[in-house]
Amino acid sequence: MAQKHALHLDPKVRQEARSRLLSAKGHLEGILRMLEGEPYCVDVLKQLKAVQGALDKVGEMILRSHLEHHVASAALRGDTQRMVEELMEVLKYR
Amino acid sequence: MAQKHALHLDPKVRQEARSRLLSAKGHLEGILRMLEGEPYCVDVLKQLKAVQGALDKVGEMILRSHLEHHVASAALRGDTQRMVEELMEVLKYR
Amino acid sequence: MAQKHALHLDPKVRQEARSRLLSAKGHLEGILRMLEGEPYCVDVLKQLKAVQGALDKVGEMILRSHLEHHVASAALRGDTQRMVEELMEVLKYR
Amino acid sequence: MAQKHALHLDPKVRQEARSRLLSAKGHLEGILRMLEGEPYCVDVLKQLKAVQGALDKVGEMILRSHLEHHVASAALRGDTQRMVEELMEVLKYR
Repeated sequence: MAQKHALHLDPKVRQEARSRLLSAKGHLEGILRMLEGEPYCVDVLKQLKAVQGALDKVGEMILRSHLEHHVASAALRGDTQRMVEELMEVLKYR
Repeated sequence: MAQKHALHLDPKVRQEARSRLLSAKGHLEGILRMLEGEPYCVDVLKQLKAVQGALDKVGEMILRSHLEHHVASAALRGDTQRMVEELMEVLKYR
Repeated sequence: MAQKHALHLDPKVRQEARSRLLSAKGHLEGILRMLEGEPYCVDVLKQLKAVQGALDKVGEMILRSHLEHHVASAALRGDTQRMVEELMEVLKYR
Repeated sequence: MAQKHALHLDPKVRQEARSRLLSAKGHLEGILRMLEGEPYCVDVLKQLKAVQGALDKVGEMILRSHLEHHVASAALRGDTQRMVEELMEVLKYR
């Protein structure tokens, strides 16, 4: 557990993720405003897809950083089994 | 065009979508707070997945309503081609 | 039920789907041959992805045809509820 | 390059993958037979989804084995950058 918490998200990736999530949040607020009016279904679906795409991008950045900084060194630390299990769990429903 | 904008999202679905998106926005704000600290990558990925799942749910509700109220009656209105094209576009990258 | 079976897949789409699935089957046989040797994991994953992409394409063609020929006329036939339910079921895990 | 080809797919996973792909191939042949008749679109879509699910399962097995046997030891071998790049490429369109 202590070991796990030492595996922090890379600060540069964290900043980039924050900035992208702030923008996704703004986009989501835009959809909420649309829903106060009488939007056309497909217009809402398009906006939702754009937000999902932005969240996918953030997930991809964090995944890449995790593979590089934590999974690739699992054999060195001796926690391969746990790293693989939790990663498969997170990738499962992508 | 005028016809298109008459095809509004069903008000009941719209309310439910708003309520779910407000909750997703709260969840997203929680992830933003996580990113002010030093989170573990996989914990962030899990939370992102939860938000994605919530947005999927909203998309699913709106899609169902659109199929039921608008696509199923396309032949009656005579706009089948356009309804199908725009729907395929939106489903494409799901 | 009888009504349901009258909603056949468009013959032209059916031919195109067959031809694409035959090609996907050939591709799958190629992967099976790879697996008789000692392939590199990522090479197998790439080939699997190509087959999945081909199957996605076939699914997309059939979905488009179904929307156009069957779902868009559901209100005319009076089977909207069933058409929407079964479509949502099929789209669910895409 | 020589090093890369030393990273073979685990033999046990390879056998299991072959067996599952043979079954998926049989399923695909069943869909091809359906398409010689006059199937209902949604029935074909359901069968396609089942095959896709089977291929997903195989991909998941191979991915897990790759993470465990090859990615987790990348830092030991010194090929982290390449392992991560090729893995991200393969995960990209999942």
